[in-house]
Amino acid sequence: MSFIATPQFLHFPQALPLQSGASIRDYTLAFETYGTLNADRSNAVLVCHALNASHHVAGVYEGQDKSEGWWNNMIGPGKPLDTRRFFVIGVNNLGSCFGSTGPMHTHPDTGQVYGADFPVVTVEDWVHAQARLLDQLGIEQLAAVLGGSLGGMQALSWTLQYPERVRHAVVVASAPNLTAENIAFNEVARRAIVTDPDFHGGHFYRHGVVPKRGLRIARMIGHITYLSDDVMNEKFGRQLREGLDLKYSTQDIEFQIESYLRYQGDKFSEYFDANTYLLITRALDYFDPARAHGGDLTQALARATARFLLVSFTTDWRFSPKRSREIVKALLDNRRDVSYAEIDAPHGHDAFLLDDARYMGVIGSYFDSIAKELA
Amino acid sequence: MSFIATPQFLHFPQALPLQSGASIRDYTLAFETYGTLNADRSNAVLVCHALNASHHVAGVYEGQDKSEGWWNNMIGPGKPLDTRRFFVIGVNNLGSCFGSTGPMHTHPDTGQVYGADFPVVTVEDWVHAQARLLDQLGIEQLAAVLGGSLGGMQALSWTLQYPERVRHAVVVASAPNLTAENIAFNEVARRAIVTDPDFHGGHFYRHGVVPKRGLRIARMIGHITYLSDDVMNEKFGRQLREGLDLKYSTQDIEFQIESYLRYQGDKFSEYFDANTYLLITRALDYFDPARAHGGDLTQALARATARFLLVSFTTDWRFSPKRSREIVKALLDNRRDVSYAEIDAPHGHDAFLLDDARYMGVIGSYFDSIAKELA
Repeated sequence: MSFIATPQFLHFPQALPLQSGASIRDYTLAFETYGTLNADRSNAVLVCHALNASHHVAGVYEGQDKSEGWWNNMIGPGKPLDTRRFFVIGVNNLGSCFGSTGPMHTHPDTGQVYGADFPVVTVEDWVHAQARLLDQLGIEQLAAVLGGSLGGMQALSWTLQYPERVRHAVVVASAPNLTAENIAFNEVARRAIVTDPDFHGGHFYRHGVVPKRGLRIARMIGHITYLSDDVMNEKFGRQLREGLDLKYSTQDIEFQIESYLRYQGDKFSEYFDANTYLLITRALDYFDPARAHGGDLTQALARATARFLLVSFTTDWRFSPKRSREIVKALLDNRRDVSYAEIDAPHGHDAFLLDDARYMGVIGSYFDSIAKELA
Repeated sequence: MSFIATPQFLHFPQALPLQSGASIRDYTLAFETYGTLNADRSNAVLVCHALNASHHVAGVYEGQDKSEGWWNNMIGPGKPLDTRRFFVIGVNNLGSCFGSTGPMHTHPDTGQVYGADFPVVTVEDWVHAQARLLDQLGIEQLAAVLGGSLGGMQALSWTLQYPERVRHAVVVASAPNLTAENIAFNEVARRAIVTDPDFHGGHFYRHGVVPKRGLRIARMIGHITYLSDDVMNEKFGRQLREGLDLKYSTQDIEFQIESYLRYQGDKFSEYFDANTYLLITRALDYFDPARAHGGDLTQALARATARFLLVSFTTDWRFSPKRSREIVKALLDNRRDVSYAEIDAPHGHDAFLLDDARYMGVIGSYFDSIAKELA
């Protein structure tokens, strides 16, 4: 049984200055909250999302049994992040396509849909926007900020942009920046979208089309990198989709893995916004707190005062344990309080969204200890 | 200084029965030979190619200084495969786009360009066609068959289809079949090509267009999988293409790695045939000698009587050392004569085409020992 979640919306008329030098005004943030803010407003936990997720982190929508939030296994009454003790906030990032202002909305200056004119936003910009939302909610300091993958980058950035506003940061399956290979996969996905004739330079909305070919390719590439080689072999191997005989065709589906990827691509292309895909992958590419410090991560993380939990998964080749260990090392160099768990899980990057007793146990214990501080 | 290579062509009027049940007749094979066939015709070495290569294995074309063959570092006078001692044959596979009959040629039954109607060919079909070529050249038995990647699969298949015609097989950076992840990458590349509006169901020639968008994406994906994460970080890292300042753009090139991939994609789309790409990746997907033996590779390789050298590269994640070791194990289970070298090279799958003293040394020593058998 999941609890009922209700999306909320807050409008921000005043301009948010962006890292690029541009700004965005009259924007809306979609968010959800679960649990109750305590009297001294000390039990708030912000959950940051990755590429294909939203403010709908946990619970289900009224009358929609299958609408579980994307981290419903992690967050709720009696779950590792227990909403009986914490006030949990999920927020949809600017530029996304699930409720907050994004490329599909109207530019207040022109009255036209933003499309490709939506300003490039960074992890730092998202964190800034999240901080303004917390101001509106009357939350001065977070008990914790929590995120996986790109969400982990936001959690890390919180500790650098607003060190005094974060007591704990939980950074799961993340990295201090993307590798060349990570950027390369993002770039191929973007090129597939941008060169789709239905993209129309990012202004496809006014043509009544969607660059679905590009979105499908982007999603298929994504899925390959989310899974481990091992789990792919176990789930699909070289299994044929139909019977035992080969069809000898280059275009028909022959192997189960092809069927899976095409299905995932088709599904994604039905609901995800192409401009959002470009924006979010670019935010990933740009994130690099060490950049302003000549590449020195230890120096970059010196500002952080939060206590940290980092979690990585052995078979995650997208954000490998090595990358989490770089963050751990830089924090230890700064004599910060860090816990680190490397979970031996077979599922690759996807593991951060899945049930694994040890993983859930580590997160649960950490939040238990935070809860004790509140008492 | 490279020697002068000259392409030759042989026409085969009689039908070649294919594994699919179809057949192909009136086809031409492009090939090159280097060195001299000795009196007892015992020094012939067949070199099999991978996706983006051809019969032009070594040497340069008359008056074209920069036209070195794709394995020119490996093959030639005084090189690891020494053309002063061996008679080396390179052959372009059926369905390729570099001289042998392929999708761009005319179907003898219809008088139309094959396009998507070119029959699906397998590794076994290629080996069969190569054997027929050797018949024409009067070569009953090969001193060795040599190939890397998909070429290595052909070398392995030679030892199973024509065990009595192969004394040695040199299988480099290869695998006994593709993993689900390998197939997945092939499938994404194929979908990018097939869904390009300029593909026209594989009959784009008659429309005077080329599905370049799809070919570019396919090649970009390929390049990511050819390189190791480490070498990508070393060569490109997070280096920006211009200056030190970010442009904050989702479509402009920002990082060097993006520039490299786009360049490789553009170049490839200018010369490679889209239908050939589909055919060759499908031949890769299908190769699986253990399939007919219920997945038992040991049983599958029992037919092989050749002596083997296998070589793999530590950072090759496309055809990892683990896959080569599966072949080694299956051969040893059959008490075959096998040498195996695992080269600690940083370059990923690409290493099989690059100079590495230990790699060249291993191949050179092995061919030295074969040469001694000839004396």
